[in-house]
Amino acid sequence: MSTQPFIGAQEYFPGIGAIPYEGTGSDNPLAFKVYDAQKRVGGRTMREHLRFAVCYWHTFCNAGHDPFGPGTRRFPWEKGEPMATAEARVDAAFEFFTKLGVPYYCFHDIDLAPDADDVGQYEKNLRHMAAMAGERQRATGMKLLWGTANLFSHPRYMNGAATNPDFAVVSRAAVQVKAALEATVELGGEHYVFWGGREGYACLHNTDMKRELEHFARFLAAARDYGRSIGFEGKFFIEPKPMEPMKHQYDFDSATVAGFLHAHGLQDDFMLNIEANHATLSGHTFEHDLQVASDHGLLGSIDANRGNAQNGWDTDQFPTELYDTVGAMLVVLRQGGLVGGLNFDAKPRRESTDMEDLFIAHIGGMDAFARGLEVAHALLTASPWEQWRRDRYASFDTGDGKAFAEGRLGLADLAALATKNGEPAQASGKQERYENLLNQYLLR
Amino acid sequence: MSTQPFIGAQEYFPGIGAIPYEGTGSDNPLAFKVYDAQKRVGGRTMREHLRFAVCYWHTFCNAGHDPFGPGTRRFPWEKGEPMATAEARVDAAFEFFTKLGVPYYCFHDIDLAPDADDVGQYEKNLRHMAAMAGERQRATGMKLLWGTANLFSHPRYMNGAATNPDFAVVSRAAVQVKAALEATVELGGEHYVFWGGREGYACLHNTDMKRELEHFARFLAAARDYGRSIGFEGKFFIEPKPMEPMKHQYDFDSATVAGFLHAHGLQDDFMLNIEANHATLSGHTFEHDLQVASDHGLLGSIDANRGNAQNGWDTDQFPTELYDTVGAMLVVLRQGGLVGGLNFDAKPRRESTDMEDLFIAHIGGMDAFARGLEVAHALLTASPWEQWRRDRYASFDTGDGKAFAEGRLGLADLAALATKNGEPAQASGKQERYENLLNQYLLR
Amino acid sequence: MSTQPFIGAQEYFPGIGAIPYEGTGSDNPLAFKVYDAQKRVGGRTMREHLRFAVCYWHTFCNAGHDPFGPGTRRFPWEKGEPMATAEARVDAAFEFFTKLGVPYYCFHDIDLAPDADDVGQYEKNLRHMAAMAGERQRATGMKLLWGTANLFSHPRYMNGAATNPDFAVVSRAAVQVKAALEATVELGGEHYVFWGGREGYACLHNTDMKRELEHFARFLAAARDYGRSIGFEGKFFIEPKPMEPMKHQYDFDSATVAGFLHAHGLQDDFMLNIEANHATLSGHTFEHDLQVASDHGLLGSIDANRGNAQNGWDTDQFPTELYDTVGAMLVVLRQGGLVGGLNFDAKPRRESTDMEDLFIAHIGGMDAFARGLEVAHALLTASPWEQWRRDRYASFDTGDGKAFAEGRLGLADLAALATKNGEPAQASGKQERYENLLNQYLLR
Amino acid sequence: MSTQPFIGAQEYFPGIGAIPYEGTGSDNPLAFKVYDAQKRVGGRTMREHLRFAVCYWHTFCNAGHDPFGPGTRRFPWEKGEPMATAEARVDAAFEFFTKLGVPYYCFHDIDLAPDADDVGQYEKNLRHMAAMAGERQRATGMKLLWGTANLFSHPRYMNGAATNPDFAVVSRAAVQVKAALEATVELGGEHYVFWGGREGYACLHNTDMKRELEHFARFLAAARDYGRSIGFEGKFFIEPKPMEPMKHQYDFDSATVAGFLHAHGLQDDFMLNIEANHATLSGHTFEHDLQVASDHGLLGSIDANRGNAQNGWDTDQFPTELYDTVGAMLVVLRQGGLVGGLNFDAKPRRESTDMEDLFIAHIGGMDAFARGLEVAHALLTASPWEQWRRDRYASFDTGDGKAFAEGRLGLADLAALATKNGEPAQASGKQERYENLLNQYLLR
Repeated sequence: MSTQPFIGAQEYFPGIGAIPYEGTGSDNPLAFKVYDAQKRVGGRTMREHLRFAVCYWHTFCNAGHDPFGPGTRRFPWEKGEPMATAEARVDAAFEFFTKLGVPYYCFHDIDLAPDADDVGQYEKNLRHMAAMAGERQRATGMKLLWGTANLFSHPRYMNGAATNPDFAVVSRAAVQVKAALEATVELGGEHYVFWGGREGYACLHNTDMKRELEHFARFLAAARDYGRSIGFEGKFFIEPKPMEPMKHQYDFDSATVAGFLHAHGLQDDFMLNIEANHATLSGHTFEHDLQVASDHGLLGSIDANRGNAQNGWDTDQFPTELYDTVGAMLVVLRQGGLVGGLNFDAKPRRESTDMEDLFIAHIGGMDAFARGLEVAHALLTASPWEQWRRDRYASFDTGDGKAFAEGRLGLADLAALATKNGEPAQASGKQERYENLLNQYLLR
Repeated sequence: MSTQPFIGAQEYFPGIGAIPYEGTGSDNPLAFKVYDAQKRVGGRTMREHLRFAVCYWHTFCNAGHDPFGPGTRRFPWEKGEPMATAEARVDAAFEFFTKLGVPYYCFHDIDLAPDADDVGQYEKNLRHMAAMAGERQRATGMKLLWGTANLFSHPRYMNGAATNPDFAVVSRAAVQVKAALEATVELGGEHYVFWGGREGYACLHNTDMKRELEHFARFLAAARDYGRSIGFEGKFFIEPKPMEPMKHQYDFDSATVAGFLHAHGLQDDFMLNIEANHATLSGHTFEHDLQVASDHGLLGSIDANRGNAQNGWDTDQFPTELYDTVGAMLVVLRQGGLVGGLNFDAKPRRESTDMEDLFIAHIGGMDAFARGLEVAHALLTASPWEQWRRDRYASFDTGDGKAFAEGRLGLADLAALATKNGEPAQASGKQERYENLLNQYLLR
Repeated sequence: MSTQPFIGAQEYFPGIGAIPYEGTGSDNPLAFKVYDAQKRVGGRTMREHLRFAVCYWHTFCNAGHDPFGPGTRRFPWEKGEPMATAEARVDAAFEFFTKLGVPYYCFHDIDLAPDADDVGQYEKNLRHMAAMAGERQRATGMKLLWGTANLFSHPRYMNGAATNPDFAVVSRAAVQVKAALEATVELGGEHYVFWGGREGYACLHNTDMKRELEHFARFLAAARDYGRSIGFEGKFFIEPKPMEPMKHQYDFDSATVAGFLHAHGLQDDFMLNIEANHATLSGHTFEHDLQVASDHGLLGSIDANRGNAQNGWDTDQFPTELYDTVGAMLVVLRQGGLVGGLNFDAKPRRESTDMEDLFIAHIGGMDAFARGLEVAHALLTASPWEQWRRDRYASFDTGDGKAFAEGRLGLADLAALATKNGEPAQASGKQERYENLLNQYLLR
Repeated sequence: MSTQPFIGAQEYFPGIGAIPYEGTGSDNPLAFKVYDAQKRVGGRTMREHLRFAVCYWHTFCNAGHDPFGPGTRRFPWEKGEPMATAEARVDAAFEFFTKLGVPYYCFHDIDLAPDADDVGQYEKNLRHMAAMAGERQRATGMKLLWGTANLFSHPRYMNGAATNPDFAVVSRAAVQVKAALEATVELGGEHYVFWGGREGYACLHNTDMKRELEHFARFLAAARDYGRSIGFEGKFFIEPKPMEPMKHQYDFDSATVAGFLHAHGLQDDFMLNIEANHATLSGHTFEHDLQVASDHGLLGSIDANRGNAQNGWDTDQFPTELYDTVGAMLVVLRQGGLVGGLNFDAKPRRESTDMEDLFIAHIGGMDAFARGLEVAHALLTASPWEQWRRDRYASFDTGDGKAFAEGRLGLADLAALATKNGEPAQASGKQERYENLLNQYLLR
């Protein structure tokens, strides 16, 4: 990896160097308190476990607009002219990646390159910027975790992209997915993501869900086939979200998407990219939706952020709640890691307008996941946590319970056993014992 | 159907006769304003369309307790001794059914008969009461829409029934399902329901969801096999609910259960019984979850009630919101009706303590669904509603759009078409036009 | 009122004339089905009761952006240059008002006129456009229901306007309020509104709520004093909203604002402008928050829209749910009407991109409130509804109950009465009877 | 304080002794990991800061029922006969208090003593049990933090207690408040609480909120006067809750109750008892509602528990989230402590059925608050947290800002200053810096 302080012609974050690890005793807001990239946790380094990625859109494109006002951040890479801005932005981005010390980044086609209604111009823009990003990757050692196409911002997608009631829009969406797949392959992207921001409905009255979902599956299969045809060997990830911007989105949660993938034979090429704030909007904990995905063998990657328990929209805050990061890492460690990584799909608050806030926000998220990793690892390897869990299910490990689990007992068999064995003994669930143990390890 | 005013030795609803249809001009709270059983709507009578059922539990067993206080209703059939109460209750129930004029009812095993920890006593109680209910059915012409077993109230099921971590509890649950299936068959019940009130978790820390769900599938398959072995020819219904009493319940919503049924090969014998309030607790509209079930070919029956938009628990109010009933009937009419029916899984408010309130509440629900039926029928047959919907998707009916829908176009084909055809024309979704049309037909 | 088809040099809604009343049998989407301006309901015309206003921002400025994409509507009055657009927009607006047939409109300073960071330029722009709007008012007979200043969009207000931690921002906010008050007075505006979109916090960690609220009261008092000094005789309205864009907003709901106004002696000049969607976001029904405001004598005006029960943000949909409009009109009729009016703070969906959709949406809202008015009036005057309510409280009208209500009985007196009188008789709340009556009148 | 292992004739928690402090390294689930009663934090001991109380109802009366099933815990003090149970329960309670090592407890009248419809019997029962509790207090050194009357469980209160539409019920409620106040005084209770579980409405249709709230104020004033007349010198606490069991409850949140108390002149005798789970149900964070109460000078006491972010009802879980306890202690320390205390209005989960779970649950809550205290104290005294906050508002400490804050500048003055001073400088809110600092201190 490069050690130069910045990339290209201009330093965009002057006064900020490579972020060091200094421990919880440090008073330096621009230092890690927990994340120590080379520290080993159970056989791997933190860097290898956590596979952090910075997202291009929130970090370098999103100036902080919300429905009631425009952006507040004044990015020094905004040059007025779109392509000049795009070129400056890529330099700023790689300077940021390098100083922060993450191995990966992620992008949408039109984060990286200026959009254009004209297909040829759009493709040309993306090819130009992908070439430039490739150069920066080679110069810095940065890697692309995944690429994706933005099929939700342009007004043409207002009624959906792959699920649009108008075939002309569906085919226009293919332009972007094709180009974004090509760019991903060119940049050695490890995976490719579909977030269906407009794949859903604003109003059920005018919508034929069944037909739209069939089109969605067709579209995904076509993308998969095209990707394979150009040498893409990674996974395709679906990123569930239940709503917003649409009233209802089809990729509601892990369980819904798992059912959809199996119904359409897509489960071998597609996995899930679970975002914390999307999980909570769907009525689940982050850990729950990760576990459901993992139980289906489909947990591929994570969009690391958090929501706000009092606000019913996607706040995309940086993940600083340690309970969330411990829960997430329990699931990840149990399944042996992620083929994807932890992408910070998070934005500093609209009111956080200093350039250093971009660093401070990422540092907080990285520290929170580093501590989550340590605590989860300790719970799994040094505490009674897993043994307690296994003991609860021991009656299915042998004898009649095992026979039932293997489908060898009928309803009458079961009833006869119950009649013979009498009233079951009561077994406390001991929830509070688990909760206390978690806090104990958190504070150790 | 019997015309006698009451069943058995005592009249439990004195002063209330058969509920007549009197129209919206009537001032009689004990008359239907809309529901006219023999009125024809598009080829069937209202009675045939709506297939109303009264539920045994809320109507005759639930005195109105909530987490902060005991029941308030003083049922004249409460005789102190459990079996005497059960016998009086069945008379009261059939008197109520008859006076209200519904064709169906539904029950849990331990609504109908006293529960007992001793398996033999439990089975004996249920056989006794099922025999008595059978006599009342024959006397009145009433039919059983579906039966079910209560696997959530007894403390033994606190950690789950079919998904309990202890095999002893799983087998004890089989006792009840076996007996309830037998009673359902004996009474000519058309279907059988599973509501998994404790099939979920209070705490993810101590739970192995994957293992529990595999057990759940085994259990359902065993029940299915047993039912078929004793001559049960109806459908098994799963009733989704996302939470409450458990923090998370496995049968979260229609999409989740559809995925589960397919994953375990249960989709031919099992369908869904969708409850309005459960749908809204899962973050969907009632109509949405009905449509998802219908799109999977799995919409079998409905638990007709409603929730309270400000309260985050299952309020099980009577369904009086006409928007809900129109939406529901749109889905039902489009799929050609229900193999099941509309069961009022609803309870009068804890503060509604007059015996007549049981009638008033059901009348309101029946009128609301009758009007929903009329409006939905008119929208589908006399308004432009369906044509508007079809027109939105017309581009997939022929040509390239059809080729795409049939899987005959790849991603590069789609992109080439888009390049050739230029920017798609904008098509308004016209949501407000649909909403206004619905109100127009509601008020006609 | 003018009868000319449009205002100024260009017709912006060609093909659409004055919207007629045609009744529920009409198939014309551009006709009222219920709203008949001159129809009398209990001594006043519908027009006099409902006092409809069209809002400038959503209708003429908001092209349909959301957090995930830009606007979709292509307004023919967008001329590129800001002032030319503003001038064209005012013509479009008055054409729209006139064709729709509403008596009132409402605006923010920077809806009407282009914003400018330079104070002098900002004031000049607003004066210019206010003069133009005044001419259009005189030409058409339209009136201004209320004016307001937008203190939430500009980045300078990101941490609050009147409650900003920086005095420089507080004083900058005064520039806009002063100018907007002056424009309101010039245009004969009947009232003036404060919606505190950024008066709240993103994060409690960095916030001193007590200090901010004291500043807020100071600012409101200063605005009140200035308004009175320039001849403003209307009411100042506070518009409650619990959150969004801020995590928490100080004007949370009616009860909170009523407490705040009284704590700071503002209750004689300030009233509330209750928005339906804001009420539901605060955990209340629309009717509830209206009733609370009315019970405090503070219900001045209404922002007529609705939210989406599944979405946790301000969707500002057009009010087409008849239950909401009946509930609202019950409160309004009981208090004898509004000093303000019913302002449609509502926007067509982002997907509703035809120009006629602006009309269709307003027609639906006006019809829904017209029907709400009719039903509420009938319930209050022709049904037993009010008598039922009064009878519930009859024990406080005379004797000991009256003595208690007047503060003439102590706790020991009450206890002694209870001891003497024995267990109270049970009184059913009869909720379902009210619900059925409401549906009966809705369908009559 | 007594050192004997149990009180009375029987040990109810055999095998469990006084809970020791053992630190986070301990593997003993029945030891404190953080709470060390005599450890000093900034001039007071943890015991003095935290003033923990155990609640009688959840801990000794609530066997774990929920709306779908009866209780699961088999309390050894359940003796069948009500008074025998009450007597055994008081012994079990004081054994528990003593072993756990808390200084306070809290009760409702009918937790402590058997309820009776007959007023004389009810009073006799309560006097008997209060006398017994007094003996136990003297024997153990335990103190009563506050008493209260249960005005929500009995069916007579279904439509409200003090706000019941029937005066007979209002006066019956006085019987209980009078007796509970007398018992509180007899036992040296430091305060008295009103939780208005039924003071609200199920249905707005049948409710006159204004009249009910006036009655509520009359009732509270009568209780206050009676309390003072019998020598009660403590505070009366109102405990806000927005809903459940009622659809809406009048004591919605801190802001609502503060407004109500001031409107009725009750603010000198009444303060607030804020419950975490009630705060979150009202759409606020726990810390927010505490801060609002504190800013009004009304934060008297705390019901320490937590809700479940995915469940919309009062789960009353034990408070183990450290973010909550840090936030709470920040508010408490800033106002210099509580006149009340931290009462665990929390229940072990229904599935936590071992007797030791009662201890484990309380230990977890006490440790979480002890750590919250340490972290909050360190943030306030050893970190830049408070200085950061003060600096944000510095512009109001002197000069024009101060003049504004003191009401000495009018709107035109403010506007003139803004015009002179030009565009305000942007000031980042730095939310992420605060969040990171909090985690840093949590992990230190």
